[in-house]
Amino acid sequence: MRILICNDDGIYSKGIRTLAERLASEFEVTVVAPDRPKSAVGHGITLHKPLYIERHDWGPDINVFAVNGTPADCVKIGVQLILADKLPDLIISGINEGSNLGTDIIYSGTVSAAVEGIIQGIPSIAVSLCGNVFTDFRYPADFTASLAQQVLRNGLDDDTLLNVNIPSHKREEIKGVSITSVGKRRYDSTYETRLDPRGRSYYWIAGKILDIPNSEDTDVHAISENRISISPVRFVLTHQEFIDTMKQWHIKW
Amino acid sequence: MRILICNDDGIYSKGIRTLAERLASEFEVTVVAPDRPKSAVGHGITLHKPLYIERHDWGPDINVFAVNGTPADCVKIGVQLILADKLPDLIISGINEGSNLGTDIIYSGTVSAAVEGIIQGIPSIAVSLCGNVFTDFRYPADFTASLAQQVLRNGLDDDTLLNVNIPSHKREEIKGVSITSVGKRRYDSTYETRLDPRGRSYYWIAGKILDIPNSEDTDVHAISENRISISPVRFVLTHQEFIDTMKQWHIKW
Repeated sequence: MRILICNDDGIYSKGIRTLAERLASEFEVTVVAPDRPKSAVGHGITLHKPLYIERHDWGPDINVFAVNGTPADCVKIGVQLILADKLPDLIISGINEGSNLGTDIIYSGTVSAAVEGIIQGIPSIAVSLCGNVFTDFRYPADFTASLAQQVLRNGLDDDTLLNVNIPSHKREEIKGVSITSVGKRRYDSTYETRLDPRGRSYYWIAGKILDIPNSEDTDVHAISENRISISPVRFVLTHQEFIDTMKQWHIKW
Repeated sequence: MRILICNDDGIYSKGIRTLAERLASEFEVTVVAPDRPKSAVGHGITLHKPLYIERHDWGPDINVFAVNGTPADCVKIGVQLILADKLPDLIISGINEGSNLGTDIIYSGTVSAAVEGIIQGIPSIAVSLCGNVFTDFRYPADFTASLAQQVLRNGLDDDTLLNVNIPSHKREEIKGVSITSVGKRRYDSTYETRLDPRGRSYYWIAGKILDIPNSEDTDVHAISENRISISPVRFVLTHQEFIDTMKQWHIKW
């Protein structure tokens, strides 16, 4: 079975290297990842500059390519160019350093690589390690390898990806696995204002996570209980009932 | 009523200027837009560099700010910093030069500004002019002003934005308004390969739109019939039924 691995922390991150080396013992692994960190890029793609592909050497078992683009670019290039003649059976994005829970999905480069995967018609998984209490990626990589086997055996629904978040705790402190819905996350609305050496103001996004209620079936709640969260994610974009409401507006043109 | 205007073509584009000047006759208008074109950036936000805000002068009736960030950054800064004490009643992103139909929504900077608007809890509209047959933004701006009045009168559902696409034809050639669902768009999978002057290969995304079937209720179909399309868009991310399926997998950890 062939797996394409991508991420948004970039080719030099520990999470992607640990995952690729672990998966290479069971699968044919190709890595295509950004040449530098690309967090919170959302689902950007690169239309206005050309992309370069650079080969890296991680030993004989893994094909590795760095691209000067976004996570979604890397998946497109992986599927449409590098693996065009032998499409991957599965795409895995990660392992991200930091959680991607609830509304984070909208901003996340990690998840956007998996979204591009399902747009390309290939089952996809995004994997994140939550927090930095214990950033050893070996257990998360083991868990991902076993989940990959199950996904390849059972299949996913069309247009569906799995968003996986793993608590950053020792294995024996993890309480179990929950299949969850996507919760809500909001950040407080602060920008830090500073003056640069030339006297101009500049601004840093400085939002902290707000403590808003999330029901027990959500990813946010599962992680707060030290459980691994797996959310099946599908982008349903049309608000069908509101179409009927709007038809009563009698919009003139 | 206060309106915050953003876009992804940047502060110097004709579409945003025409829209802002048209709306200023009826509303209190603030423009916060990227200082350069930011198409296809998706829902990126800027975490790793500071943002600068530069004031522009478009006359006494409009407050205008350029930001060295993404469309989503501009909306965050507009709501959380510039208009923090007098929140906008409505956010409008556009008028974009080029359509944002179907799956394009996932990649679109134009739509992502409206998505950030609803994350901030403010009714939001994304407006795009489809194609370049007739790029006069005056009629699209008139239509947007009238739609804005209706949205302010009737309200939108929570977490719902309107994605509006207007055919690039003369007003008298436009056949009407359709309230639509979000269709499907796919691009063919080609990268153009070239050699740079130093002999290194580089790659341009060069996908053309594929002609895939779209039902009559979709945005893609409405535009093909020279009708204005308005899709109520809401991000429902959880694939609820697949949760039950996955609970049967008995995933070990």
